[in-house]
Amino acid sequence: MVIQPASTQLDATFAALADPTRRAILARLATGDASVNELAEPFDMTQPAISKHLKVLERAGLISRDRDAQRRPSRLEPARLAEASAWLEQYREFWETSFARLDAVLEELKTRKHKRRQPSRR
Amino acid sequence: MVIQPASTQLDATFAALADPTRRAILARLATGDASVNELAEPFDMTQPAISKHLKVLERAGLISRDRDAQRRPSRLEPARLAEASAWLEQYREFWETSFARLDAVLEELKTRKHKRRQPSRR
Repeated sequence: MVIQPASTQLDATFAALADPTRRAILARLATGDASVNELAEPFDMTQPAISKHLKVLERAGLISRDRDAQRRPSRLEPARLAEASAWLEQYREFWETSFARLDAVLEELKTRKHKRRQPSRR
Repeated sequence: MVIQPASTQLDATFAALADPTRRAILARLATGDASVNELAEPFDMTQPAISKHLKVLERAGLISRDRDAQRRPSRLEPARLAEASAWLEQYREFWETSFARLDAVLEELKTRKHKRRQPSRR
């Protein structure tokens, strides 16, 4: 079996996504660029705490930040998300098969229940 | 702005995926169930090291293991991968727009190059 080469990029992407605040920051940035202030406000977190999360997201390439402007707004960078999504897509046939199997089982159970509720009138 | 509730399941899924060995184990299990021995062999890792990774994958719900059998084969459980994929899918329009923009820029550059290479013959 050939072992896949270590992908430090995917490591960084998935690690960055393994935090609810960072995922919420990305969701916020999907609605438009935002400064640290604007990001800190709804989270009830200090600016330094938000800044730490932004650094993780930036290192993972999930956001970019304006270097020059005083506000340094953060921007969602979707390429890494696309890469992570492509990795997960490899497994789509597995979950689709598995859900189809589950559907079949549920359908079977419903049919049985239905049969019990409608006894023959002979 | 409404903040998304913390999703400990997505945290666990993404954290488990943030490691190249664990991703390779999932890729191996996609070809069929495997025992710790079978998993350890191609990775040139000790069984305890593989067992640790399997525990992380199992806790995250990405694999299940046969409790009774001596071989305790691991099996890929795709539902969590589907969940992670659904989360990423929210951002599909972002990367598709961004890639379309990139395509347009590349097309524009190609056209310009082509024009430079074919000067008018007047």
